[in-house]
Amino acid sequence: MLSDQVNEELLHAAGDRLKVIASFSVGTDHVERDALKKRNIRLGYTPTCLTDAVADITIMLILMAQRRGGEAMAKVINGDWSKMPWHPLLMVGPQIRGSTVGFLGFGRIAQASLQRLLPFGIRRAIYLTSKPGQPVREDHFGLIKSAAIPIEPAKSADELASESDVVIVGCALTPSTKHMVGADFFNKMKKLAVVVNIARGPVIDTDALVKALDEGQIFGAGLDVIENEPNIQADHPILQQPRCVLVPHIGSATIETREQMATESVKNLLAGLTGEAMVNELEL
Amino acid sequence: MLSDQVNEELLHAAGDRLKVIASFSVGTDHVERDALKKRNIRLGYTPTCLTDAVADITIMLILMAQRRGGEAMAKVINGDWSKMPWHPLLMVGPQIRGSTVGFLGFGRIAQASLQRLLPFGIRRAIYLTSKPGQPVREDHFGLIKSAAIPIEPAKSADELASESDVVIVGCALTPSTKHMVGADFFNKMKKLAVVVNIARGPVIDTDALVKALDEGQIFGAGLDVIENEPNIQADHPILQQPRCVLVPHIGSATIETREQMATESVKNLLAGLTGEAMVNELEL
Repeated sequence: MLSDQVNEELLHAAGDRLKVIASFSVGTDHVERDALKKRNIRLGYTPTCLTDAVADITIMLILMAQRRGGEAMAKVINGDWSKMPWHPLLMVGPQIRGSTVGFLGFGRIAQASLQRLLPFGIRRAIYLTSKPGQPVREDHFGLIKSAAIPIEPAKSADELASESDVVIVGCALTPSTKHMVGADFFNKMKKLAVVVNIARGPVIDTDALVKALDEGQIFGAGLDVIENEPNIQADHPILQQPRCVLVPHIGSATIETREQMATESVKNLLAGLTGEAMVNELEL
Repeated sequence: MLSDQVNEELLHAAGDRLKVIASFSVGTDHVERDALKKRNIRLGYTPTCLTDAVADITIMLILMAQRRGGEAMAKVINGDWSKMPWHPLLMVGPQIRGSTVGFLGFGRIAQASLQRLLPFGIRRAIYLTSKPGQPVREDHFGLIKSAAIPIEPAKSADELASESDVVIVGCALTPSTKHMVGADFFNKMKKLAVVVNIARGPVIDTDALVKALDEGQIFGAGLDVIENEPNIQADHPILQQPRCVLVPHIGSATIETREQMATESVKNLLAGLTGEAMVNELEL
């Protein structure tokens, strides 16, 4: 598991008969690769099979951010529903139909999210990758080829920020993406736009997000991840923002996905013992 | 507005020159139709234009119910995220891919919701109308004709309950649909199924729902409406259920929808004054 450290100490205790490790995870930060390499131990992991689960939660967070879901639930929970007299603009939020959706990172999960968004009536999709302005190579679900709306590369983060009604953060965390969504980015966003992060917390500068929500620079946010997770205390400034929905990194938390990860881990383990090809093996 | 009573008192005070009323609403329960008819006053209303907004919230509530969104948000808000050590089944819920989705009522909003659900990879849709076992006449978005999955009428509420992984309540409230989703219905539902209500509260028997959630007969619920709304106090039993998400009847609460309702109301008013056809006029 991600929570188990695979280091010299563990490998020494395991002894010479250890031939293979199957990690039940997408990331392998918990494994000291050099230590494995030195001992010729093979490493299996489960980087695929999360796509559907994470794409589903992306749509959930977009809708929660646009439709003020967290704020709405809180009002009910606090017993305030009866104190909200009806008027035409009570609890309104922007509608997704007609939106331009901007993807920061446009890999498999982002494209699966776009696929789900099409029947909501979005108008246009733009994306920014490490090669701004260039079309992505992989069209995982044939959308770029066949969708009825334009799907185009953005030339810059500024363009993505200023033209999107929905921004989806789905890129890897690297030195160049850290805090990429910060004060400058929020400054350029539309006042009715929302931002969703299903990738890694530090891509968004949390302080800048709190300020952007406070000052109404953007409409709302939906986060599955955040800087310094899971150490988010009840008095964290982001939790004081009614227009921000934060869930505890549950993007891949479906029964089906976790069962598939377990099955693939066992397959990797058996393949490691019999010398066959793993479902996914990490080159050490 | 829905909150204004149009009755003898108001009409008397308005006097003989009142020729037309434009109600900014889908329902017209707040209008005494006979009183209008007697005075030859025309009545406009805005029954259309909510479809997108309500279909969007339907998807939000399905995902929130399956993915334990309310429970997950509450854990973060209470500062408990750091106390949730990772394990493979932490906060897992059922995945929508492969689901059978059952619609109680299959009008325009239900069909718009189905249209949105298709790219999530659902396997089959069934629906129950006032004519069980008979195909619906109106195929609003050409789905029945062209969708790649079976879309079929259910023969009974029992069949809908027992075969659905997701139940969407989208029917009108009538004497025969009141409490249609009650103890018997929940008894037949799958343990991993969720129910969503975007129609009218009393179609679901709230006491039975609380019991079904309490006893694990179903996995979760997502409600935009509930019996006795808006008088839901903080100690209401449904609010003690972590697997139930309840929002305060915000299904149509988008800026775009409410603007369109306003525009149509003004058009209805002008048409009423000039004797032309309204966008939507209620026959009195």
